[in-house]
Amino acid sequence: MQKKQQQQADQSSQNIMATILTSIPKDANVTKIDYEGPRIALYTDKPRFLMENNEIISNLVNQIKKRIVIRTDEKIRKSEEDARKILDALVPDDAGLEATFFDTATGEVSIEVKRPWLCQRNAEEFNHTEVTEQTGWRLRIRKSTTKPSNTIKSINYQLKISSADRAKQLKSVGEEIFRPRLVQKSEVSLLTLGGFGQVGRSCMLLTTPDSKVLIDCGVNPGARTPSEAYPRLDWANISLDELDAIVIGHAHLDHTGFLPVLTKYGYRGPIYCTEPTLPMMNLIQLDAIKVAGAQGRTPMYAERDVHQIMKQTIGLSYGTVTDISPDIKLVLANAGHILGSASCHFHIGNGDHNFVYSGDIKYGKSMLLESADTRFPRVETLLVESTYGAKEDIQPTREEVEGAFIKSVNEILKGGGKVLIPIPAVGRAQELMMVIDKYMKSGQLIESPVFMEGMIQEATAIHEAHPEYLERSLKQKILETDDNPFDSEYFTNIEHADGRDEPLREDTPCIVIATSGMLEGGPVLEYFRNFAPNPKNKILFVSYQVNGTLGRRVMDGARQVTIMGRDGKVEVVTINCGTEKLEGFSGHSDYNQLMSYVQRLRPKLRRVLVNHGERRKSQNLSSAINRMYRVTTHYPQVQEAIKLF
Amino acid sequence: MQKKQQQQADQSSQNIMATILTSIPKDANVTKIDYEGPRIALYTDKPRFLMENNEIISNLVNQIKKRIVIRTDEKIRKSEEDARKILDALVPDDAGLEATFFDTATGEVSIEVKRPWLCQRNAEEFNHTEVTEQTGWRLRIRKSTTKPSNTIKSINYQLKISSADRAKQLKSVGEEIFRPRLVQKSEVSLLTLGGFGQVGRSCMLLTTPDSKVLIDCGVNPGARTPSEAYPRLDWANISLDELDAIVIGHAHLDHTGFLPVLTKYGYRGPIYCTEPTLPMMNLIQLDAIKVAGAQGRTPMYAERDVHQIMKQTIGLSYGTVTDISPDIKLVLANAGHILGSASCHFHIGNGDHNFVYSGDIKYGKSMLLESADTRFPRVETLLVESTYGAKEDIQPTREEVEGAFIKSVNEILKGGGKVLIPIPAVGRAQELMMVIDKYMKSGQLIESPVFMEGMIQEATAIHEAHPEYLERSLKQKILETDDNPFDSEYFTNIEHADGRDEPLREDTPCIVIATSGMLEGGPVLEYFRNFAPNPKNKILFVSYQVNGTLGRRVMDGARQVTIMGRDGKVEVVTINCGTEKLEGFSGHSDYNQLMSYVQRLRPKLRRVLVNHGERRKSQNLSSAINRMYRVTTHYPQVQEAIKLF
Repeated sequence: MQKKQQQQADQSSQNIMATILTSIPKDANVTKIDYEGPRIALYTDKPRFLMENNEIISNLVNQIKKRIVIRTDEKIRKSEEDARKILDALVPDDAGLEATFFDTATGEVSIEVKRPWLCQRNAEEFNHTEVTEQTGWRLRIRKSTTKPSNTIKSINYQLKISSADRAKQLKSVGEEIFRPRLVQKSEVSLLTLGGFGQVGRSCMLLTTPDSKVLIDCGVNPGARTPSEAYPRLDWANISLDELDAIVIGHAHLDHTGFLPVLTKYGYRGPIYCTEPTLPMMNLIQLDAIKVAGAQGRTPMYAERDVHQIMKQTIGLSYGTVTDISPDIKLVLANAGHILGSASCHFHIGNGDHNFVYSGDIKYGKSMLLESADTRFPRVETLLVESTYGAKEDIQPTREEVEGAFIKSVNEILKGGGKVLIPIPAVGRAQELMMVIDKYMKSGQLIESPVFMEGMIQEATAIHEAHPEYLERSLKQKILETDDNPFDSEYFTNIEHADGRDEPLREDTPCIVIATSGMLEGGPVLEYFRNFAPNPKNKILFVSYQVNGTLGRRVMDGARQVTIMGRDGKVEVVTINCGTEKLEGFSGHSDYNQLMSYVQRLRPKLRRVLVNHGERRKSQNLSSAINRMYRVTTHYPQVQEAIKLF
Repeated sequence: MQKKQQQQADQSSQNIMATILTSIPKDANVTKIDYEGPRIALYTDKPRFLMENNEIISNLVNQIKKRIVIRTDEKIRKSEEDARKILDALVPDDAGLEATFFDTATGEVSIEVKRPWLCQRNAEEFNHTEVTEQTGWRLRIRKSTTKPSNTIKSINYQLKISSADRAKQLKSVGEEIFRPRLVQKSEVSLLTLGGFGQVGRSCMLLTTPDSKVLIDCGVNPGARTPSEAYPRLDWANISLDELDAIVIGHAHLDHTGFLPVLTKYGYRGPIYCTEPTLPMMNLIQLDAIKVAGAQGRTPMYAERDVHQIMKQTIGLSYGTVTDISPDIKLVLANAGHILGSASCHFHIGNGDHNFVYSGDIKYGKSMLLESADTRFPRVETLLVESTYGAKEDIQPTREEVEGAFIKSVNEILKGGGKVLIPIPAVGRAQELMMVIDKYMKSGQLIESPVFMEGMIQEATAIHEAHPEYLERSLKQKILETDDNPFDSEYFTNIEHADGRDEPLREDTPCIVIATSGMLEGGPVLEYFRNFAPNPKNKILFVSYQVNGTLGRRVMDGARQVTIMGRDGKVEVVTINCGTEKLEGFSGHSDYNQLMSYVQRLRPKLRRVLVNHGERRKSQNLSSAINRMYRVTTHYPQVQEAIKLF
């Protein structure tokens, strides 16, 4: 029976085109069928028919088990100028059309609007089919951001100038994905290239007889030698053109910092991640070039290598089943860690094996994001992170930490002082914005100006542009109301050093949120040297402070430290203000949450592997899971190969 | 301090030639210094000086830590004809010079003599230096065999016709071995390609940043599909020209059966094994072609691929330290399993890690071989076989099994019957010959003719030609006396079917030893159909009978079986004779011996890996070692990578 299904699957794979051609009615006016990366694109010069008869496509998808998208024939696409005029006329004025982006590789136009709920498919005054028929372009609706995102603009520009190349590349990616399987017997191995028995340089290679997929490609910024700082692709003995795909879990440097090096040295295949992960990682990768320059190091890659990534990335929504090679299907699921962070579910060889890589997970809801998703239909092998894998790694509840935060900040504001919160730009900053906005609005937190400086605004814009990835009620607020908490009146962004007069003015109680998160550079230092000598103020740490950083020394109670002043001279800062560390805002699960996550999946599991933690923590989590859930566990080191199936 | 030693080692490696040139006195008349595989060859046109001043070479070896050999300058080498005449004159008549073989790649002449003790270096009437001076060739003394070995003849022929190529190849092998290390930091991984969690297709890849060494390359004859029958080189993603070396532990097909496929597909690098392993594996590999043909299968390789192996093999004696790559030194040690079988000791990266692969071991003395050697100066990781790794795998002592053998055979011979012993040609046959010869001579076993048929004679000749690999007293008998047990008057070899009249004649009590060992074909079948119907006879099994073979069915008590008769028709054989299985002649260690072997090495060990056993047996041995000796253990499966260092 299994064998028969297998054969059927193979046949249908060979006969995809034939099946489509015989199933689509003449009235659909299909003019071309082509691969578009992992999707099959049906081009039509009469889009109305297929758009109004959804069941035709959904029946077809059920039959061939491939993703299908409807595309407009190039002949019917109006010029961008004409199409823009039509859009201006059709988009309701109240929606607030702010920008359009035409992607000629796919024939889609993205429109950025202030009030997306007035342009959704079910909106009364706006008909998608009509727009497509009149313009010849298919529609994507995007929420416009409070401030325009330079990152998204830059990505759109890169997509525009590369659209002819991308169209070709998407076709050849599709041909690779849908090539016949050479070997019918499934075998699955996982090669550990980085981030096992350690935090940093996450990277692994998933191999089958037919495919090779690289998962994550990070750096370990704390390491001293190249063999400790970068993923061990050299050890795997693999050349870049052998890779079928690269899958990226989330944007942080320890998961993406080495990716531009791969495009620099010629990787031209597809890169899969969620839609917001692309701008987020671009932002972080480009910033890493600047940081290297500021520290007098030669950057490992250039801007063009990051731009190249934009051209190769295929964005996937949570929950969409996507073929990424002849025998591997990928589903990304919310991981709750940062915007767009994903657990990766690999469905291998017609269901012979299901492998889930948790990625960095928060199994617990926050104000910004939903809790990590566990609804995988099957998981034989789970690879779970262990940043907080030690028994003692227990965080206070969200209620407790929010209470402590309110109490601590109110105290200072009441006393006429200022609160400085050093913070990483991505994730924690936006979470804290939501916390501050909520409690100021409810009156529990004393109203006061909140100043932000650094990459925070840009990262926030990327959050606003992707509301569907946010916590349910936050998403609803942004997508369906004018009450956008990111646009709260409490927040003031400082664009230049000139703007610092207000937050620095004496006797102005305020909150300042600035990067970098460990006082290792960036605008936060200017506030630090100004606030620290005054006992009325407080420095509040809400994120992890690595040993050896200035942030760690201050947190640990240093009363005098030296920093590099604005004039390049060493300056002594005396710390008379209060300092405090608040646990519980972490984007990682604590020990209890990790155990609950595994317990939730337990009935399906055959084996659990543990990564992304100091060796001691991975070991502890591994043996705890083994002991409590009676499932085989293993915590590999870097440079191991594990046979999954 | 360590770093300094490292630097010194590197420097001396770069300056080998310079060091030699400055250390060798003018009187040595060195005319050329060249790599000869892993050795450094000093050519001289006055060999007497270096031959008489051994301490010069041994001091040099201590200094540069490389193997050095003295070679004669080609100019002084007499023609083979002239040299042969000189040898005829100089070799004492009593020594019985039977053959000479001139290897122009090394300038060595091997002389085969009946009485080698009359030609050894310490012999009174024979001076090596004089011979070399007169002929211009360096000497190797070999014991001539009772019957000439066709395999050794064939190897000599292949070496002869390829000598110019081999000289070039040995030089380039040396240049590869002594290239500078690219990476100073040692890392060691072991990739399991076959023979883990199973018996058959032994194969693994040892990798460092500088080197890749394949260890063993066998087939699993019992497997049905290629992915189960052959080593998984495809999975390791390695091309043959990346390999620095192949190391072969012993000759059996499950360790060497895939090697001709590698030469067929272009492997041209060095193959290291003990001297007798080369002819033994050639014999077995060529036989496998015949067997495939007889069974109507297409052989995987041709004779020429086996001949190619002969040209690439570099024979090593037990205990010689040999550089096989820039950061790996190899020492082979007696494994006690079959003639020439070796445990392989890898000394990696100037002593950063020492890895010992036991190979198939007999940790217990037999009449044919010494017990497996355990004198490794350091072993951090041991990989040990587990053929008999289950708790219940306990064999009787040698005294017990020999007693049972004598009793069983005497009973039949007394009753006027015949004993048929189906046996594999290599190893068990020669062991049994030694047992029979000893007990017939001592009078404990009734004297009777012993007939042998199959590949046994050829395998026996290879044993005779390599007495230095045999059990100490046996070696002494062959090398120093005329009492050669292999040449015992009890033994009669049957060369052709015509010669079977005597063993088949009724009322002639006798012992017949014939191949194959599991009644799956070969001459043994003719004796079986003849002996089985007579209740006076007995079929005695002394080796393992695989499930599903005719041997196993007979052993298990079948009273009627069908075989393919001589005319190609199916024939029914009724079994009225006795059948018996004698445990204890195995070439493998039993459970207790495996545990003792590990215990012996225990003080040095950091980790023990277990292979070469059914999964259950490997698992049991692994956990027993972990429990009793408190050392980390692991029993990997095929397609895993383990980081050793």
